Amino acid sequence: MLGTVLHGPRDIRCEEVSEPKILKPTDAVIRLAASCVCGSDLWPFRGLNDVTAPMAMGHEYCGLVEEVGGAVTTIRPGQFVVGSFCISDNTCSHCRRGFQSSCVQREFMSGAQAPRARVPLADGTLVATPGTPSDDLIPSLLAASDVLGTGWYAADAARVEAGATVAVVGDGAVGLMGVLAAKQMGAGRIIAMSRHKARQNLALEFGATDIVTERGDAGVERVKALTEGVGADSVLECVGTKEAMTQAIECARPGAMIGYVGVPHGVELDGQWLFFSQRGLLGGPAPVRRFLPHLIDLVFARKINPGKVFDLQLPLAEVAEGYRAMDERRAIKTLLRV
Amino acid sequence: MLGTVLHGPRDIRCEEVSEPKILKPTDAVIRLAASCVCGSDLWPFRGLNDVTAPMAMGHEYCGLVEEVGGAVTTIRPGQFVVGSFCISDNTCSHCRRGFQSSCVQREFMSGAQAPRARVPLADGTLVATPGTPSDDLIPSLLAASDVLGTGWYAADAARVEAGATVAVVGDGAVGLMGVLAAKQMGAGRIIAMSRHKARQNLALEFGATDIVTERGDAGVERVKALTEGVGADSVLECVGTKEAMTQAIECARPGAMIGYVGVPHGVELDGQWLFFSQRGLLGGPAPVRRFLPHLIDLVFARKINPGKVFDLQLPLAEVAEGYRAMDERRAIKTLLRV
Repeated sequence: MLGTVLHGPRDIRCEEVSEPKILKPTDAVIRLAASCVCGSDLWPFRGLNDVTAPMAMGHEYCGLVEEVGGAVTTIRPGQFVVGSFCISDNTCSHCRRGFQSSCVQREFMSGAQAPRARVPLADGTLVATPGTPSDDLIPSLLAASDVLGTGWYAADAARVEAGATVAVVGDGAVGLMGVLAAKQMGAGRIIAMSRHKARQNLALEFGATDIVTERGDAGVERVKALTEGVGADSVLECVGTKEAMTQAIECARPGAMIGYVGVPHGVELDGQWLFFSQRGLLGGPAPVRRFLPHLIDLVFARKINPGKVFDLQLPLAEVAEGYRAMDERRAIKTLLRV
Repeated sequence: MLGTVLHGPRDIRCEEVSEPKILKPTDAVIRLAASCVCGSDLWPFRGLNDVTAPMAMGHEYCGLVEEVGGAVTTIRPGQFVVGSFCISDNTCSHCRRGFQSSCVQREFMSGAQAPRARVPLADGTLVATPGTPSDDLIPSLLAASDVLGTGWYAADAARVEAGATVAVVGDGAVGLMGVLAAKQMGAGRIIAMSRHKARQNLALEFGATDIVTERGDAGVERVKALTEGVGADSVLECVGTKEAMTQAIECARPGAMIGYVGVPHGVELDGQWLFFSQRGLLGGPAPVRRFLPHLIDLVFARKINPGKVFDLQLPLAEVAEGYRAMDERRAIKTLLRV
């Protein structure tokens, strides 16, 4: 079959790869309803993570189960499933406490920018939907696999409360999903930091009440001005750069939590500065599995439409253009027809 | 009057200082029932913070109000009061959210290792006790002014929950108070990390269920072994060194919060390491004012006896010996009769 392989910086190819197979009795093989490109795929694409060997790309997926291994008990062929980009057993101590992204058997999904994929630890990773979804729900279910679950985790880690003022740093797909999550959690005010018109519009549609176009110190000043000098009660950091993290911390009021989900690149935090800022931090890879049942319910009930984050659809053969469009910020997120 | 002044590293003197006076209409002047030496006083004493001019030492206090400024409305002469080491107005947005230690008018108390002291922002800083306490309660009320309130904040920031497993890094007065706080909050298991017999005994008396004498990687391994490999649900970091912070983070389970109250010295946190560790952090100077009413109630009801943390009592004239005894770990905490 055709699949997506990164051979080096900016060298992304749709090429012949081997068909996925059941390798362990806890595996499933699924036929994807759709796949997509993640902002985090851009780190190695841009050469900011080393690529020492060809990488099978893609970790977001939903689709029909084709085959399961002999030890799989809760997932059956024919079910429509959504899974997390983090593979988890959902039974270990970390999973039971809701941190499936730190599962003792954690693996990161790969090879999902393809028509079919192998999912390890199927029982712990996959969640079956209530029946087969109609086609228009596919983008939203696909979003739940990573960006929606990750934005949701950012809001959860930032302890968004009803009526609270929330600032979101980053207007990529995850930041926009963070806006949606904060809205669902009852935030009273949601400040989206974006200087890109299409993203601003989507943020407003997802529930943002204010747009801040300034960045850095000027952005912090603007958030302070919007909050009577106080700062936000919760901040979602959805980028991963030093500038974004600093901005997120400084936008927050003392005692606020920053939920940070952008994988930090070049971020060093001075302990004494953080101490006297009195802002709290919780981040990491999102335990999407914790939220999946609730997110699937919201999508099926059509209470949320996170699939709108896909503003470019391409056939798998044109995956390279999908990467480039996101890299150049011509697209927020690319859906791949597989 | 006599007061305590630090002139340079290890040069601490009890010497003639000017009497405190009402300088602003929001001030109070109190006659201290007792004073004490704080672990944080040892940073400049040891030369780890610069001392560029003589410093009036002492920030922990309780006692009788002698005089108040014309704008003070809730505190009256003759009341017995306890105040926080952080001066706060208790009305600004940060105070109202429970972070009085980030008050927009924040000052740090000084000059309280003396018989009398000026307290700025008396209405926002001081809490009157329900009547004049008996002498045996004075050490506990004095502890509430900083170390008890700080240990309490560490447990609060670490989100100690009923039944949880809590690890406490640091067996100084604050760490021991953290043990007491975790016990009051219903922790099911409290692991105190200490290699000092007297402190271990006090930790056990305050509610510790386990003592870990190992430090660094060995200490982390021991906490993991005690928790079936999981790590603690909440960790209190009460030291401030890089080693202690690393140990605290590594003792925690993914998703756990570390409440850190040791002022960081030489602590740098790598963003990506912290991200993948998936541990949360909240620290800073403790908003003792938030907790004071509750802590005073607990002391008056004799439900807690934090005053036991004072294992050395000296007259003010011997304050230098009080510092040395703590510096050399011959004493946990020195109470000064003033």
